[in-house]
Amino acid sequence: MTSTNDDAVALAEALMACPSVTPATGDVFAALETMLLPLGFTVDRFVVGEAPDGPVENLLAWRTTGAGPHFAFAGHLDVVPPGTGWTSDPFVPVRRGDLLHGRGAVDMKGAIAAFVAALRQLPDDLPGTISLIITGDEEGPATYGTLALMDRMAAHGMRPDLCLVGEPTSSARLGDVVKIGRRGSVNMWIAVEGSQGHVAYPHLADNPIPRLVRILTAIEAEVLDEGTDWFQPSNIEITDLEVGNPAHNVIPGRASARISIRFNDRHSGESLIERIRAIAGPLGGAVTAKISGEAFLTQPGALSDLVRGAIREVTGVETELSTTGGTSDARFLSRLCPVVEFGLCNATMHKLDEAVAVEDLRDLARIYALVVERALRG
Amino acid sequence: MTSTNDDAVALAEALMACPSVTPATGDVFAALETMLLPLGFTVDRFVVGEAPDGPVENLLAWRTTGAGPHFAFAGHLDVVPPGTGWTSDPFVPVRRGDLLHGRGAVDMKGAIAAFVAALRQLPDDLPGTISLIITGDEEGPATYGTLALMDRMAAHGMRPDLCLVGEPTSSARLGDVVKIGRRGSVNMWIAVEGSQGHVAYPHLADNPIPRLVRILTAIEAEVLDEGTDWFQPSNIEITDLEVGNPAHNVIPGRASARISIRFNDRHSGESLIERIRAIAGPLGGAVTAKISGEAFLTQPGALSDLVRGAIREVTGVETELSTTGGTSDARFLSRLCPVVEFGLCNATMHKLDEAVAVEDLRDLARIYALVVERALRG
Repeated sequence: MTSTNDDAVALAEALMACPSVTPATGDVFAALETMLLPLGFTVDRFVVGEAPDGPVENLLAWRTTGAGPHFAFAGHLDVVPPGTGWTSDPFVPVRRGDLLHGRGAVDMKGAIAAFVAALRQLPDDLPGTISLIITGDEEGPATYGTLALMDRMAAHGMRPDLCLVGEPTSSARLGDVVKIGRRGSVNMWIAVEGSQGHVAYPHLADNPIPRLVRILTAIEAEVLDEGTDWFQPSNIEITDLEVGNPAHNVIPGRASARISIRFNDRHSGESLIERIRAIAGPLGGAVTAKISGEAFLTQPGALSDLVRGAIREVTGVETELSTTGGTSDARFLSRLCPVVEFGLCNATMHKLDEAVAVEDLRDLARIYALVVERALRG
Repeated sequence: MTSTNDDAVALAEALMACPSVTPATGDVFAALETMLLPLGFTVDRFVVGEAPDGPVENLLAWRTTGAGPHFAFAGHLDVVPPGTGWTSDPFVPVRRGDLLHGRGAVDMKGAIAAFVAALRQLPDDLPGTISLIITGDEEGPATYGTLALMDRMAAHGMRPDLCLVGEPTSSARLGDVVKIGRRGSVNMWIAVEGSQGHVAYPHLADNPIPRLVRILTAIEAEVLDEGTDWFQPSNIEITDLEVGNPAHNVIPGRASARISIRFNDRHSGESLIERIRAIAGPLGGAVTAKISGEAFLTQPGALSDLVRGAIREVTGVETELSTTGGTSDARFLSRLCPVVEFGLCNATMHKLDEAVAVEDLRDLARIYALVVERALRG
């Protein structure tokens, strides 16, 4: 076991040097496997799924040392496309000053490198199980990513007690924000059928647009909630309107709208679908829906206190617990156990010249090591 | 001068045998010119306009016999495309039983044949001027049709005192409906600009759709009028909605709607544009508009009485004066003088196997002849 401070940086460089635009396969997983095997981990790499959302490569790794809790790190090795305009090759990691540049530096190969660096720092006698739940498809459709990893864990008879997702949650300084929940997301399509006709003879037609407007007016008047201690208010956005009628003198036969709801843990996707149906149905609107993810909240407590304490000890930063932002794979993992998300600063994620402060990589590895040690010692 | 009852039928066949899908040119105008020259008419055929709405052929003809009123017949020689599925060639007129079949039978080569047949029946000593205002572009954009003919008349120093447009106004029986006015028509486009963003961060975006919905709700609540003695209530239809946002998680930056208003003579196109602007403007909507035609009404009186009397004398039918239906070139001619529209039964207009009862053609010619004679004798 080594504890060289540069571990996390060298490991991050090794992962960032493997191009892995979503869905990631091959080399980047081999690189991670090579890092884990010497640490005594069992590594299960598998490819799953079919087009259009697959195939996808995933990696599940675990190490058990006697009886004790099961702590899981979770994350992804795929990255978003680099785009053009980088100062240097996005898949040739390069240090300029205090920053390490390259695609995936903060989202989230840097955090996965910190997982491994933390494991290298741990004492040998920790009781329990440590696992890594690493997908190659978080930035894509995610159909065969973390969900498939959860199935794989179940098949191996494993279920974590605590999980830390290494998404880049930090804002201005490493450790200033930890996510303890995420809003849920549901999209709905509202279609109103009418009867086409000539505008000169409206009594012979049935214009669906006024009914759609009444439905949307009623939806706009809905107050889903006022927010909770840990969540901002649930929000409805109308994201599209469609009629597609090029003829000026024709009353159209159909009109539709799409809405997107981001909701807190006062609601479920199904309860919101029923609520919108109750508004649209009596006004003649048919609703179809797709739930992207349910809201979840890991109640502030032992796990969040443990993470905040480790952050404070390494960096001196006071951490804000947050539930803002988009969805992440934590929406899936939260079905298994309490989940928190904590990682690097997100200022450059998905951008040109994505970069991480090398000091943050080292600090993050130390924080992760403290978290695992304290979680397993109970 | 002849007065053979079959004149109108033979003349209609001659015009219907010339294919003249809008815009009409050439043969069909030559055929009409050949009919008019022996009757002592001066014929001015001219082609005007450029793509995309031109060029268009028109025909202006006139005959003056001493001092007296100026009576004008108006109409069009172009026809809508026949489509497929006719029982026989749409441009080979054929009699089956009491019906003469062919494109343009009622809309409106039959009526133009009846114009000519009526002229043949008139006594020689009628004082005043008779003119024919015949366009090749009524079924198309009409940019260079009747408007160009009105300019041409003005250039010749002519202005009618009365005008009869031969559109197919009859419904169940020849003569049951005469139009003394038409509603106006205006289309408007309402655009609302916002600011695009991610649905997870609505505070960083500005969704234009709720504002558009509020504008459309206010427009739907507008009561323009309750109708008048001669017009049905003015009517607003929302005919299109457009956002064009395929991304479920994106708040769009722009939303728009199109409305179509058919209005009576209580309004002008401009007054309605101002009215919609007054609703949309404060809610953030920008309005652009195109007036297709202003409403007009020829007050029931001498001209309509004259036509009704002639109809009653020839057919025994009691005539309803109406302002219903779409627009016609009467919207332009009404700027010059009192206008009525009266012609054949419209049941088969624009349809497959368009047909006219041969008896109606003969009766229509007799009615037109009575109308002209009485109009010129005063």
